[in-house]
Amino acid sequence: MSNATDSFKQKLYTIIFRSDTKAGKLFDIILLWLIVLSIFLVFTESINSVRQSYPRALRLAEWGFTIAFTIEYLLRIYSSKNRLRYIFSFYGIVDLLALLPGYMSLVLQGGQYFIVLRSIRLLRVFRILKLTRYLYEGNVLKTALKASLYKITVFLSAVVALVTIVGTLMYVIEGENSGFTSIPMSIYWAIVTVTTVGYGDISPVTPLGQFIASLLMITGYGIIAVPTGIVSVEMAKASLPGNQCPSCKNPIDRFGANFCSYCGVSLNESTNS
Amino acid sequence: MSNATDSFKQKLYTIIFRSDTKAGKLFDIILLWLIVLSIFLVFTESINSVRQSYPRALRLAEWGFTIAFTIEYLLRIYSSKNRLRYIFSFYGIVDLLALLPGYMSLVLQGGQYFIVLRSIRLLRVFRILKLTRYLYEGNVLKTALKASLYKITVFLSAVVALVTIVGTLMYVIEGENSGFTSIPMSIYWAIVTVTTVGYGDISPVTPLGQFIASLLMITGYGIIAVPTGIVSVEMAKASLPGNQCPSCKNPIDRFGANFCSYCGVSLNESTNS
Amino acid sequence: MSNATDSFKQKLYTIIFRSDTKAGKLFDIILLWLIVLSIFLVFTESINSVRQSYPRALRLAEWGFTIAFTIEYLLRIYSSKNRLRYIFSFYGIVDLLALLPGYMSLVLQGGQYFIVLRSIRLLRVFRILKLTRYLYEGNVLKTALKASLYKITVFLSAVVALVTIVGTLMYVIEGENSGFTSIPMSIYWAIVTVTTVGYGDISPVTPLGQFIASLLMITGYGIIAVPTGIVSVEMAKASLPGNQCPSCKNPIDRFGANFCSYCGVSLNESTNS
Amino acid sequence: MSNATDSFKQKLYTIIFRSDTKAGKLFDIILLWLIVLSIFLVFTESINSVRQSYPRALRLAEWGFTIAFTIEYLLRIYSSKNRLRYIFSFYGIVDLLALLPGYMSLVLQGGQYFIVLRSIRLLRVFRILKLTRYLYEGNVLKTALKASLYKITVFLSAVVALVTIVGTLMYVIEGENSGFTSIPMSIYWAIVTVTTVGYGDISPVTPLGQFIASLLMITGYGIIAVPTGIVSVEMAKASLPGNQCPSCKNPIDRFGANFCSYCGVSLNESTNS
Repeated sequence: MSNATDSFKQKLYTIIFRSDTKAGKLFDIILLWLIVLSIFLVFTESINSVRQSYPRALRLAEWGFTIAFTIEYLLRIYSSKNRLRYIFSFYGIVDLLALLPGYMSLVLQGGQYFIVLRSIRLLRVFRILKLTRYLYEGNVLKTALKASLYKITVFLSAVVALVTIVGTLMYVIEGENSGFTSIPMSIYWAIVTVTTVGYGDISPVTPLGQFIASLLMITGYGIIAVPTGIVSVEMAKASLPGNQCPSCKNPIDRFGANFCSYCGVSLNESTNS
Repeated sequence: MSNATDSFKQKLYTIIFRSDTKAGKLFDIILLWLIVLSIFLVFTESINSVRQSYPRALRLAEWGFTIAFTIEYLLRIYSSKNRLRYIFSFYGIVDLLALLPGYMSLVLQGGQYFIVLRSIRLLRVFRILKLTRYLYEGNVLKTALKASLYKITVFLSAVVALVTIVGTLMYVIEGENSGFTSIPMSIYWAIVTVTTVGYGDISPVTPLGQFIASLLMITGYGIIAVPTGIVSVEMAKASLPGNQCPSCKNPIDRFGANFCSYCGVSLNESTNS
Repeated sequence: MSNATDSFKQKLYTIIFRSDTKAGKLFDIILLWLIVLSIFLVFTESINSVRQSYPRALRLAEWGFTIAFTIEYLLRIYSSKNRLRYIFSFYGIVDLLALLPGYMSLVLQGGQYFIVLRSIRLLRVFRILKLTRYLYEGNVLKTALKASLYKITVFLSAVVALVTIVGTLMYVIEGENSGFTSIPMSIYWAIVTVTTVGYGDISPVTPLGQFIASLLMITGYGIIAVPTGIVSVEMAKASLPGNQCPSCKNPIDRFGANFCSYCGVSLNESTNS
Repeated sequence: MSNATDSFKQKLYTIIFRSDTKAGKLFDIILLWLIVLSIFLVFTESINSVRQSYPRALRLAEWGFTIAFTIEYLLRIYSSKNRLRYIFSFYGIVDLLALLPGYMSLVLQGGQYFIVLRSIRLLRVFRILKLTRYLYEGNVLKTALKASLYKITVFLSAVVALVTIVGTLMYVIEGENSGFTSIPMSIYWAIVTVTTVGYGDISPVTPLGQFIASLLMITGYGIIAVPTGIVSVEMAKASLPGNQCPSCKNPIDRFGANFCSYCGVSLNESTNS
């Protein structure tokens, strides 16, 4: 291959895979819009009246997206430095899966199950969203969530234990005639209740059942405080730099502080990264 | 124009447009009540039984408000320093739009759509509410909300992504016979569920659908903690000492700081009360 | 009156009106149980099947409570230092109102409206609950709530403005055939939705209505963070002593600290109240 | 008994009752799975269609679990140091109760009520979960919850008072024709509303009733902030440095404290990392 082809491939790579140049950003934005529109197409096509009114327009649009994504996929393979690695990477497979339903609809006469395949395009949004990882704000959120993940898991286990016990109880109390037809169904009801969703498709009718339901609601209402408290504290911690003044060992209050607010020593030389 | 007219115009301007004199405050309070009552009239008129029982009284009251607002509008034009600027300002247009429905009902026989126009009066409340901008408490709230706006947007995008994915899944799982008639409808259901509203107009009936719904509810119940944590932390920051470093005018980070973390000046002598 | 009567009256007063002696506490606990049981009687009597099954038992119990409360009322009048002041005090009137329904049922044949009168007994619970005002924990809660009351009012006004606007919009969009029969009804729906209660007695059926409802739900879900943030911050402030170290002017961390954690000076002599 | 038997009993004890050896951990994990599967069996058996389709398989599985738990129970008795103490301990009784339903089904022909007995197996999960008490994260949660328990109780009492008053009011306002058939039923509705569950099985139909319901919803929406604020503050306290003053062993209040606020000793030399 000549040097010119190499340089062209290099340029293409920068445009398609990276987003630190103007052309790269433009490519990402156009791709984001294409993906969003193609997902929007899947959604509107699922509406019966739309599908029956505009069958040709929908088919045309679907083919347009399939061809556009095929070109993009081929360009990605062409320009990537290690082709096999791209093809078998997570995003490589997602990119391929996003094309398949369009071509498969030529051969097969599928119905609803194509939608699952076509919805895989949703995953393609993450290709662009991964850029957000460079954002500061997202980092604070992520740090706080990671730090509170374990505590929240402990909390959610307690909630699961609670709904299991209450669900079993309610199955015995309410019996089958008021919608509590099995223990899993009763646990489903307990989850609907403790999370304060409250569909009302199943609701207790016996006085004792209503009393236990009331206790469960008040519990759910009260313990929502727990995850909130956890995240608040972690969020507060995550927005602190977390390092100490080299002179007096007090914590530093603020990202980018020039001086320690305890002893007044200058922080700019070395420590405060 | 004579000097006396000028002085009268000046006085009128102070009463109508400002609220730092006694007369100005009185004018604002009377206007607020007129607006609130006129909105209340629109609301009660929308109740069928009321509209049919008192057609004359409602028509009379409507004309009373229209005439009062017309006089106010003409006085505002007359007394304002730059008339064109007032007429084409946001509040000038709102004031005009609040009059139109009354006069249009003479000519046209509209029905429900007049209500939209007449509801524009709602916007007039903000004319008076803008005074709240001088309140300290409102400022703390605003600062905290502005600071957390970006983080909450990131959070809400994640919620939107979640409901899109779960909505699509549920459309495939539940099928059309249990209310999940299209993907947008399923996404609507997912929003109703994750926000713990839970109307119950659509609810899953298959075991797998109920299982996924349960996961979604518990997620919604758990992640409400995130915006709450964000706002708590920002609120805590916004209600910080609030006084400035006497030397560099930057805000002081912490109750009881000895040194400014921006310029390193000692704070102990005088300012930091 | 002899000295013995005086001393008896004094003793009675201590038992009935105060709760710092053993007898006073016992009296309060017995009274609390009597009040709770009498309220419980009103509640169970409101159940149709109970009222029809045990008419005599209910009537007997009602007379028992009426006589017991009459004796208590007369003793209170007898032992109080300033009789007229007690009779016309808030609790004096409540005590009297709690007796009336029993005697009125002799003369009149009322139905449901007696329940309102008899429910006044609920207010009597506060007579005992007023003791809680001496509790430290209640004070922290009260201080925090008082401090955040104004901010929460500002917040709730914004919520009221939001539901008014969305309610009016939905009335126009949804029309009368899906339950949005008037603007007040639509505002009621908007409140049910924004607070995430979601009865489901009214719910949008048009796509545009469902879209706006979704926005409202997500808003309601997001802004719950605001009052929570407010109260958290005030609660954190309320649980700090709020005074400074006399030597280094740093805030004191903890109620009852012996030494300043910043400069080590002893706090026990004077400042730390 | 010979020394070999003793040593065998000792080994068995370590495996069954403790979990600090490899074999002990393995035993715990196998037991946890057995318990979870046996509970899962009870749950699936409660589904009508499953019970009628696979009666033999369910009976077999049930006997399998009963025999496995019997062997475990006998081994526990055999290896425990103080046998009577184990048999009459809380977990000893739970272990026995978990066996009974299996054997009782031989003699009696019970129906639904066996499920209650068999659900006691749920309690056995805690036998393994008690290990979590050694986890640091669980401790922070527990400390925070214990510290806020009293404040949350005060808060919940206020909520109970509120729903009692509103429930009584609504019973009088709405009357019996819209589902508010008795005061306890109305209180149940008030709890469903204030906790934002909102089943919709009962909902107000009169304008006044809907107005009061709206107030109750907004109140419920606003006061959820209170427990959240309480727990946040306690959680923040519970996750404090956590190390002790080297001199007086009291906890240190604040990151970066220079002196212990209990005994005044300087903390800067060594401990406070």
